Amino acid sequence: MLNVAILGGSGYTGGELLRLLCGHPQVNVAAVTSERFAGSPVSDSFLGFRDPALKFEPLHLKTLMKKADLFFLCLPHKTSQKSVASLHRAGKKVIDLSADYRLKSARIYKKWYNTPHLYSNLLKKAVYGLPEIYRNEIRKASIIANPGCYPVSALLGLSPVIGKGFIDRNTIIIDSKSGTSGAGRTPAQPFMFCEVNESVKAYAITVHRHTPEIQQELSFLSQKKVTIIFTPHLMPMDRGILSTIYVRLNRKMPLSNVQKLYRDFYRNEPFVRVLGNGIYPTTKAVKGTNFCDISVFKHEGQGQTLIIVSAIDNLIKGASGSAVHNMNIMYGFQETAGLLSSSPSP
Amino acid sequence: MLNVAILGGSGYTGGELLRLLCGHPQVNVAAVTSERFAGSPVSDSFLGFRDPALKFEPLHLKTLMKKADLFFLCLPHKTSQKSVASLHRAGKKVIDLSADYRLKSARIYKKWYNTPHLYSNLLKKAVYGLPEIYRNEIRKASIIANPGCYPVSALLGLSPVIGKGFIDRNTIIIDSKSGTSGAGRTPAQPFMFCEVNESVKAYAITVHRHTPEIQQELSFLSQKKVTIIFTPHLMPMDRGILSTIYVRLNRKMPLSNVQKLYRDFYRNEPFVRVLGNGIYPTTKAVKGTNFCDISVFKHEGQGQTLIIVSAIDNLIKGASGSAVHNMNIMYGFQETAGLLSSSPSP
Amino acid sequence: MLNVAILGGSGYTGGELLRLLCGHPQVNVAAVTSERFAGSPVSDSFLGFRDPALKFEPLHLKTLMKKADLFFLCLPHKTSQKSVASLHRAGKKVIDLSADYRLKSARIYKKWYNTPHLYSNLLKKAVYGLPEIYRNEIRKASIIANPGCYPVSALLGLSPVIGKGFIDRNTIIIDSKSGTSGAGRTPAQPFMFCEVNESVKAYAITVHRHTPEIQQELSFLSQKKVTIIFTPHLMPMDRGILSTIYVRLNRKMPLSNVQKLYRDFYRNEPFVRVLGNGIYPTTKAVKGTNFCDISVFKHEGQGQTLIIVSAIDNLIKGASGSAVHNMNIMYGFQETAGLLSSSPSP
Amino acid sequence: MLNVAILGGSGYTGGELLRLLCGHPQVNVAAVTSERFAGSPVSDSFLGFRDPALKFEPLHLKTLMKKADLFFLCLPHKTSQKSVASLHRAGKKVIDLSADYRLKSARIYKKWYNTPHLYSNLLKKAVYGLPEIYRNEIRKASIIANPGCYPVSALLGLSPVIGKGFIDRNTIIIDSKSGTSGAGRTPAQPFMFCEVNESVKAYAITVHRHTPEIQQELSFLSQKKVTIIFTPHLMPMDRGILSTIYVRLNRKMPLSNVQKLYRDFYRNEPFVRVLGNGIYPTTKAVKGTNFCDISVFKHEGQGQTLIIVSAIDNLIKGASGSAVHNMNIMYGFQETAGLLSSSPSP
Repeated sequence: MLNVAILGGSGYTGGELLRLLCGHPQVNVAAVTSERFAGSPVSDSFLGFRDPALKFEPLHLKTLMKKADLFFLCLPHKTSQKSVASLHRAGKKVIDLSADYRLKSARIYKKWYNTPHLYSNLLKKAVYGLPEIYRNEIRKASIIANPGCYPVSALLGLSPVIGKGFIDRNTIIIDSKSGTSGAGRTPAQPFMFCEVNESVKAYAITVHRHTPEIQQELSFLSQKKVTIIFTPHLMPMDRGILSTIYVRLNRKMPLSNVQKLYRDFYRNEPFVRVLGNGIYPTTKAVKGTNFCDISVFKHEGQGQTLIIVSAIDNLIKGASGSAVHNMNIMYGFQETAGLLSSSPSP
Repeated sequence: MLNVAILGGSGYTGGELLRLLCGHPQVNVAAVTSERFAGSPVSDSFLGFRDPALKFEPLHLKTLMKKADLFFLCLPHKTSQKSVASLHRAGKKVIDLSADYRLKSARIYKKWYNTPHLYSNLLKKAVYGLPEIYRNEIRKASIIANPGCYPVSALLGLSPVIGKGFIDRNTIIIDSKSGTSGAGRTPAQPFMFCEVNESVKAYAITVHRHTPEIQQELSFLSQKKVTIIFTPHLMPMDRGILSTIYVRLNRKMPLSNVQKLYRDFYRNEPFVRVLGNGIYPTTKAVKGTNFCDISVFKHEGQGQTLIIVSAIDNLIKGASGSAVHNMNIMYGFQETAGLLSSSPSP
Repeated sequence: MLNVAILGGSGYTGGELLRLLCGHPQVNVAAVTSERFAGSPVSDSFLGFRDPALKFEPLHLKTLMKKADLFFLCLPHKTSQKSVASLHRAGKKVIDLSADYRLKSARIYKKWYNTPHLYSNLLKKAVYGLPEIYRNEIRKASIIANPGCYPVSALLGLSPVIGKGFIDRNTIIIDSKSGTSGAGRTPAQPFMFCEVNESVKAYAITVHRHTPEIQQELSFLSQKKVTIIFTPHLMPMDRGILSTIYVRLNRKMPLSNVQKLYRDFYRNEPFVRVLGNGIYPTTKAVKGTNFCDISVFKHEGQGQTLIIVSAIDNLIKGASGSAVHNMNIMYGFQETAGLLSSSPSP
Repeated sequence: MLNVAILGGSGYTGGELLRLLCGHPQVNVAAVTSERFAGSPVSDSFLGFRDPALKFEPLHLKTLMKKADLFFLCLPHKTSQKSVASLHRAGKKVIDLSADYRLKSARIYKKWYNTPHLYSNLLKKAVYGLPEIYRNEIRKASIIANPGCYPVSALLGLSPVIGKGFIDRNTIIIDSKSGTSGAGRTPAQPFMFCEVNESVKAYAITVHRHTPEIQQELSFLSQKKVTIIFTPHLMPMDRGILSTIYVRLNRKMPLSNVQKLYRDFYRNEPFVRVLGNGIYPTTKAVKGTNFCDISVFKHEGQGQTLIIVSAIDNLIKGASGSAVHNMNIMYGFQETAGLLSSSPSP
């Protein structure tokens, strides 16, 4: 059994990670930390989790290092930065669910997160944990920068076409709709039930921090600088991200060819489902699962524009499920271990 | 008091129209029809409406013509086509909430609605009932083609800029999110509570019938052929449309200039509110009202792109409220009469 | 025009009161206070309210007294206690939406609110503002203790039968279900969207502070001590209270007789609708309105038990609408002035 | 591997059963039937289930009998009656999720279901599939009458006390709140999103068909005739039943004693969790799981009244999860096999 610890486990991401890891056949959850709830049972924070034995502990890295070999970090950025470095120095493996090691450039990190990155050497070691793209690197990684939720939905939607020459990488528009769990569990008026319910809104237009992350990865894949337009929206629902992506083709191409390209690209992927022609992804169909559903459409008349729709569960494929998937790859477990729950309907 | 009749009054649009007209100081609702519920009290269909006196009647135009001078039609398309013609021939005024008289071209109508238009001469007489654009024509109209819900949100978002030379009319993308009441009240599995709740999906990509309507009006306004990309989405909420609109500028222009242009364009409009810089429209802020809230943002990096966000209540500004607004203009009532309810929070 | 002020106007009750008063033909809202938001426009707190002119001011009673004659207090209990006393001393009329003047006994107040009542002489002067019971007293009152939301739904459900000898007042069970706006607008984890959505729970069993208020009024009406069982529940919706009330009959009595009794009791009430036999109240049918819908059922087999169901909008009939109704009675306005909006569907 | 068939598999209960059985390590789903969707892939009906191989077949018992040994019936009542009899005659084991074999008395069945029971001899053979009460009988059963959703929540709430002498079995009131999936998947206006959302209502007061089922089992347990008052309510959420149960004690008894009684009664039950003193069950904490959470409170003042709150997922513990649990017991599998998914938060 692999001993793992979850640092910062009282939020939605931590809770979901805990749930998945507790159901994993090869893992033992040796510790979960929370500064705010240290000493109190985990089951007080997650009503569905009624094992009274497991308690939150404080974030004492030295104590924790004796208990576990792999560390999942669900800490706020900046805090995460340092903890990752300390754990790495001690020879521990780390899957960091914060944004701290996702951006390869310390300069861009500072620009978007308003704080310097103190471990820019480690930025190079960290592997961006999107298994569909970086499986081989993940296998050998000691630090995984687990991707952001919006980036997962955007990158899986665009990866099959961004590298080929036939889309105009200067026309990418990503219009994303997210459930409220993406905003975290800390109380704040905009995320109170009565503010969110029966409402939809855009937010952080042109300034959302997932923008540079998506741009970095699309630039890597296309080997050219990519600038995107990314507009996130807040939806009155718990979970799920639906991204509707618009991008122009450079040349005429039948939709069926593009669809085949997607099917081929994801043929062996256990968690990406390319839907049949004309079938629409829904967040409900992936809720509670590690799947990403993708469908491709085409519009003619403004030239040729692809309309790619992708759906994920932001807390699973967009966070904790990906983290478990990364662990499975790192440790040679079956890739789907602990991740095969299917989506309830409803 | 103006005697009005509502034809096809048992759906959501009819119900909301009835509610607004019953609160209007210069209007008497003389009749409401429903084939399915003829004979039964209106209050059986709308639980909030408990006046037991008002009953649904069958759609006998001759009987109805004796009772009212102005007719609101919430009938299915094709049925509406004929009723409008009969009422017009009898000298009655008509506000048609169906799509039957919105498209000026009988050919385009047939292409999108799969049925011929039998009264193409009347298409020319019908005025597209968007007061912010056609106020003068509405004043003298005898047939109003009341706009579709998505078109209202899209056209109000684009009108201030489409006519000027500085946007590239070949780059318009309209990504719209709608509450479920837009799908009507007829039972169907996709709109059952458990199918819609906790889910978001795109639908009718490239084939939604509001597309030619938006294109027609944008083409009129810009006096050039406009082809749009329009993607509607279904949201887990009762009401509201949020449209996020992307369009490229032809030249550099500061955002503040564009914002001023919007403020100027809508300066005297009672129902359009251009929000301050950086303020995001929400569907909740316009719920239950006839307001359209608009905010404009700008993205640089793919050239210059405007991101325009507009929010309306699909059943009011997107249907019944607009219809009442049109009536107010036609009959010289105060434009805001019966329409000044503000949005509850929450 | 009557000049009114709202003290503590940034929460849901204050916002709804503001909305109703702004639509009232005989009222001028001269001031709205908020300690937290003093100086900022009201429209920043209530997105649907976009009049930029009105600003929150701090709670300086002296300044406010010059501006208004009637004061609506939406302050926390204890704070309200003192402000009511000061305003009353200065000859102002007060409608207090807090709980501070509802309980006639300072002893019971202290027991349930953990703080002494410093103005027990004023408790006698304050009139419990339930118009259906205390209309005459309200007419002459200078201090109105506006009822709690659950008590309104419970008392209107029980008033027609509690005074007669035929129910067993020792068997009253009130099982109430409330929307989340009842919990107020202050951020707290239990009322975050993702905690409330898709969940229902009971809370404060046997210890909810509305219990003594209901008991007091039922005891007054029956002129005997009444002890109730009251169980509130939190529902995943914005607004509405549905109370399902169980009480045993002392003797056999046909349901139709009981129903007639309810119809007679509320015959002249503008805001209580006794529904027809077998028709179920829903919170949606009263949402956004000042109506209370009531229906009565009967169960045989455990003796004879009445099952009374009542529905209100907790923010309107359960708070701000009642406050406006009380004002209308105090000032001789038409009772329904400013309160006739009907319920949208949906 | 045990070969099983699901008859009537296109509704919510069937879908959830399919999901659970597909994740069960000792089961092979050999066939799923649907008259309406025969020939089409199961994944068309359940978007989350994307295995294109499995198709709905028509209800040909002869064909089906060759494929499977255990049959789960999610058919409408009356249809189920006959199919159970045919399968039983052919030596197959049956778990019937309809109501057809739950009532032991053909007379009571006829009274509540308006149709005669043609196999009253089989009624005696059928075992009521509530494992916490009938585990031994289930082990040997060939026909399981799987309990109704409301009855599960009510019976688990009352079982620990009904058999003892200390409650007054003539005072039981069960006030239940259910998510909308309990109404099934067939389109009908009352269960459309816009009708259910933002609303709560009672329904079927005194006439709900689960009443005789609860009464039968409580009567068996107490060995005396029990008459209950049962009021179901429809909630704006997908899943979950919360039952708030009121019953008077015959004598004084400290709450802690009652709580101990519950803990003892369920000590070895894998799926019932008696919560700590003052902890409230929520439907969210059991959503997606086979757990029933129970908490007990006490009110003094009307004599001594227990207030018992129980929460289940209506589609799992209230239907398909119980069915799998019954199968596990019948076939000697581990009781929790295929049922250990925990509740996501949120």
